[in-house]
Amino acid sequence: MKYILFLLLSVFISNSQIKKEQLDLMPWPQKVDLTAGTFALSKNFKVNITGNPDARIFIGATRFLRRLDGRTGLFFEQDFLTKINEVPEAQLQINCTRSGKIEINENESYQLSIDSNKIVINAETDLGALHGLETLLQLLQNDGTAFYFPSVNITDSPRFTWRGLMIDAARHFQPVDVIKRNLDAMAAMKMNVFHWHLVDDQGWRIEMKNFPKLHELASDGNYYTQEEIKGIVKYADDRGILIIPEIDVPGHASAILSVFPEIGSKIDNGVGSYAVERRSGIFNAALDPTNPKTYEVLSAIFDAVCPLFPSNYFHIGGDENNGKEWNANPKIQEFKKKHNLANNHDLQTYFNMQLVPMLKKHGKNVMGWEEIMTKDMTKDAIIHAWRGTNEGLASGGSLIAAAKNGYKTVLSNGYYIDLMLSLESHYKNDPISKTVLLTPEEKARILGGEAAMWSELVTPLNIDSRIWPRTAAIAERLWSDESVTDMVSLRKRLKTVSFRLEELGITHIRNKEVILRNISNNQNTISLNDFTNVCEPLKNYTRNGGGKKYFMFSPLSLFADACASDASDAIDFDTAVNKYLKDKNIENQKGVTHFFEKWITMNTDLVHLSTNAPLIQPLLPLSKSLSDISKQFLLRFDDQQTLNPTILNDLLEQCNSKKQADVELAVYSSLKKLL
Amino acid sequence: MKYILFLLLSVFISNSQIKKEQLDLMPWPQKVDLTAGTFALSKNFKVNITGNPDARIFIGATRFLRRLDGRTGLFFEQDFLTKINEVPEAQLQINCTRSGKIEINENESYQLSIDSNKIVINAETDLGALHGLETLLQLLQNDGTAFYFPSVNITDSPRFTWRGLMIDAARHFQPVDVIKRNLDAMAAMKMNVFHWHLVDDQGWRIEMKNFPKLHELASDGNYYTQEEIKGIVKYADDRGILIIPEIDVPGHASAILSVFPEIGSKIDNGVGSYAVERRSGIFNAALDPTNPKTYEVLSAIFDAVCPLFPSNYFHIGGDENNGKEWNANPKIQEFKKKHNLANNHDLQTYFNMQLVPMLKKHGKNVMGWEEIMTKDMTKDAIIHAWRGTNEGLASGGSLIAAAKNGYKTVLSNGYYIDLMLSLESHYKNDPISKTVLLTPEEKARILGGEAAMWSELVTPLNIDSRIWPRTAAIAERLWSDESVTDMVSLRKRLKTVSFRLEELGITHIRNKEVILRNISNNQNTISLNDFTNVCEPLKNYTRNGGGKKYFMFSPLSLFADACASDASDAIDFDTAVNKYLKDKNIENQKGVTHFFEKWITMNTDLVHLSTNAPLIQPLLPLSKSLSDISKQFLLRFDDQQTLNPTILNDLLEQCNSKKQADVELAVYSSLKKLL
Repeated sequence: MKYILFLLLSVFISNSQIKKEQLDLMPWPQKVDLTAGTFALSKNFKVNITGNPDARIFIGATRFLRRLDGRTGLFFEQDFLTKINEVPEAQLQINCTRSGKIEINENESYQLSIDSNKIVINAETDLGALHGLETLLQLLQNDGTAFYFPSVNITDSPRFTWRGLMIDAARHFQPVDVIKRNLDAMAAMKMNVFHWHLVDDQGWRIEMKNFPKLHELASDGNYYTQEEIKGIVKYADDRGILIIPEIDVPGHASAILSVFPEIGSKIDNGVGSYAVERRSGIFNAALDPTNPKTYEVLSAIFDAVCPLFPSNYFHIGGDENNGKEWNANPKIQEFKKKHNLANNHDLQTYFNMQLVPMLKKHGKNVMGWEEIMTKDMTKDAIIHAWRGTNEGLASGGSLIAAAKNGYKTVLSNGYYIDLMLSLESHYKNDPISKTVLLTPEEKARILGGEAAMWSELVTPLNIDSRIWPRTAAIAERLWSDESVTDMVSLRKRLKTVSFRLEELGITHIRNKEVILRNISNNQNTISLNDFTNVCEPLKNYTRNGGGKKYFMFSPLSLFADACASDASDAIDFDTAVNKYLKDKNIENQKGVTHFFEKWITMNTDLVHLSTNAPLIQPLLPLSKSLSDISKQFLLRFDDQQTLNPTILNDLLEQCNSKKQADVELAVYSSLKKLL
Repeated sequence: MKYILFLLLSVFISNSQIKKEQLDLMPWPQKVDLTAGTFALSKNFKVNITGNPDARIFIGATRFLRRLDGRTGLFFEQDFLTKINEVPEAQLQINCTRSGKIEINENESYQLSIDSNKIVINAETDLGALHGLETLLQLLQNDGTAFYFPSVNITDSPRFTWRGLMIDAARHFQPVDVIKRNLDAMAAMKMNVFHWHLVDDQGWRIEMKNFPKLHELASDGNYYTQEEIKGIVKYADDRGILIIPEIDVPGHASAILSVFPEIGSKIDNGVGSYAVERRSGIFNAALDPTNPKTYEVLSAIFDAVCPLFPSNYFHIGGDENNGKEWNANPKIQEFKKKHNLANNHDLQTYFNMQLVPMLKKHGKNVMGWEEIMTKDMTKDAIIHAWRGTNEGLASGGSLIAAAKNGYKTVLSNGYYIDLMLSLESHYKNDPISKTVLLTPEEKARILGGEAAMWSELVTPLNIDSRIWPRTAAIAERLWSDESVTDMVSLRKRLKTVSFRLEELGITHIRNKEVILRNISNNQNTISLNDFTNVCEPLKNYTRNGGGKKYFMFSPLSLFADACASDASDAIDFDTAVNKYLKDKNIENQKGVTHFFEKWITMNTDLVHLSTNAPLIQPLLPLSKSLSDISKQFLLRFDDQQTLNPTILNDLLEQCNSKKQADVELAVYSSLKKLL
């Protein structure tokens, strides 16, 4: 009898047992062992914490409870965790050996084990335990009537210590709530470095007590108060995230020079000779590296800003100084000769080296974009690799050079999420190239990578849709084993990840609808939404016509702002086309023609909607092109008379237009396969 | 020839001329005269400001430009308005005689005139001009290809000087961004008083420099820093909004007493005898009015809090002190005898009168809920009328009593938007009753009204959907002429208003989808959304079972949180039923049966979705009831065999259940009409 019961039980369990492929974990952990059984969630689910963690684990565990409660509607009884060993009988036990430090190379590993009546998270530091809680949340399952966790043993730790996201708060200011919700999303993806680009040509975003004119005159009222900065630093610390501030010098200096023209490099600079930039692009404004006052001002700025940030690194920018003002200024040229500085690069190194002790004084090392890597630069510096094919260079070149030159280095080239490139391009961009031989020491200097959200084309309304869910793929690249590269698995898991990011306040899904409602003038948005699923914003730097098209003060609420890379129907259509070309049976044909019918209806709807919505007008040429070619393909599939190949090809090429509404049709190459 | 041209032209203009009924203005202005012609918007549209306004008009006009730009995608060239008469040739001219004061009874009138090449806003104060800009935004039209304003002359001013919204930030804390976006929405609806309920049993929400334990121990970390408060006061001032802070005493005192138990009225009060409340309801905790220390603490609190708020009024609450602790405390009873205080009401008056000079010292008069109106209360006080049928009293009784007693008074009874009552009930709730005779002086004392958003059942996720768009109807009641009461017109205009509120960041539409995606576990939400359009959250105080059901720390992400009052399909169904009952033709029958078919499909879908979404399970009994009766009605319409009346009636009554998922079916009474 016992034997039969055992058999019955094991059948029941094995039936209900979930498979690894069903789990939507991201980043995928180093080791996942599913075992038989489940842990059932109930109203009296509680959490207990033991060991010697930092207090951030209490806040983190409370947040965990709220999120789980929001998903399940169980109304857990436990309110706020505040003490060690408060609920010894709790089903979830978290044990941490010691307090985690918010710095690079800290231990972030954890073990998570779930069985039918107990969940245990063990971690050396609370930072590891926080990661364990995120994994646990991702494990949540349901059987249609109740929620449960599958029994599992997970052992996990990051592949790279630097898993960053940069947000440019200068081009378009991003208010505190935008930063905070993105910190939450980063933590959910086990990312641990937030690089805050605070100053650029378009604005100075830090409240300055010693130089109030900086934020008063060079921010249009859009800046972070020091209290807000401290609040964000604390918020990030609570989530295990290090903040690296950036003040970009000596180039990108229009905003600072609009207040301090006397330290600019322009000849006869004076009041009115510099102004906050209203467009994007690379500008000439550069600090004067030969003027002692430049260093007085910078030193006082660092004295004020450094104490706001506990991190050991400070990013000084250093990129894209075009040298035009330096070249045009005889006094600067004279200085170069006098100091034996062969070129502007050497002059910039001279400038950079004056900054090193200013930061050292506050216990900080220099980090900068790859241009700072010159022969005299201290090896304490972190080199931030950013240039690649878009700048006419080999991808990853400066990263490897930095590692070989003895510098710690971080990769952003390939992670420029503002360029609207494909998910795959970011995901397959491994910081450690398989084609270049590196010694173990050199490899160790590659700290990791950083997604870069430059903000020329993003406002609080659309920024989340540029960062998420794509950055989750970068987070996986930087956390998980290098062998985790399957695109089908990534796309499948990313759907759930994307959905769950909503609970952290990420607005990528909800604000898309807001933009579409505005475009449609409050009419039905189904067709517009269908169209976003085949359109992608123009890639690289093509949308904003050399920075000249949009003002930085303009709202961005166009159709292109509702579109994103990896248009979902384009991916599904390509799959359908490939399937059909492999086996031209009726079912596979329907898989393809279904899209054509959809796009013909969509175009008709859009034309109809446009009579009460001028913002739809610019979309009509492209939707007509898609509808026209769809009609032709349908005729061909029906073996009816069709156009000659030249005209058909012309119709197809109209689908390749990149001149309409700042978007391109992402189905063009799949359509071409059918010709 | 000239004559013919003139005729042609006038035909063209009269064809394109919009009718008054087509305008979606809200609140409806006092005088609207449409004239022939239109003003076409273009990229070079600019604004100029003349006269002697407060600087807030520059910020307001810049905001106006951004919003118009976001709607039209025109990328206006004008960046930030900062000076008087900066662009004399601008098409929009705003002239203000003087700087507006943020206080009651200030001049808020404006005149707006639009002709084919010029728009002029004239106002005595910038506050009036800001209202004019909101009206102008509401006038935006399009002809399918371009945007324009119709030619019009509008003369406008408010009927009542107090058009308020209260947000309770104590029960559920509402972060800065929630407050700010609601201030924007208020301004769009020409509301001018934000009443900020900052302290209650469930939390103390003000950072205190003199008593830091108040925010450290009685807020769970959820409070406004003083800098944030100053920022919100400035933000409100920029939008012409007065802020009235409230610290609710002597009842509703659990939070304050959790820190200062020694000033509580409990016998043997001491550490641990009071705690921040985790549920809602009326609690016993009350300050001890006989203890001098009570007044020392309160005086020091007012000394710290009053300077944060420029307003001339301070709300001291004063409601719902149940007197239980006072009755149980012999020392307090003795004090009453000694001071000839006949009852607890007199004792509370004694308490209130100690507060009057504490506030006077900071130039502030007392405002309080109607319980503060007792014979000794100073006539400087504003009486806030809140009780009515829900508390077993006649509606508006205390408002009239206050006006007759010589007090200025504000109406909130009938404007409790947390009760989820109908739009109509709020809209038809006029502060000046038609059935009670009042002298002109008494009428003048009725300052206006205030929508009250108590937050037992709202979090940042769903609060906007409780406030908006309903509060716009209250705003119209308080601004527009008393004769503006047509429900059909209101509902029609409210659709556009609701849509436009999105541009201010109001989340009532977008967050509904977020909640539904969570409930559906990321499946298609069409059926769930259909169901929200026939369901309404339980009304009055029935949802939260006497405050016992939900913890204040729990998330609210259930189906009821995605529903709102005035379920849209229920309204449309009722219209269809009435039409059918009037004329039982085929077309009218189809108008009704269409809904039955929709609800049968919806139920099938919901059952299907529920197999992967436990949060749908609680909805199934109600959707099944609706589907069952729909099937019966369809059978009857088809003249097929149907159930006997008793069974049919039973089925109908199942649609009247208020025991499922915290919602009720809003179509019950319409269904009943068909039986």
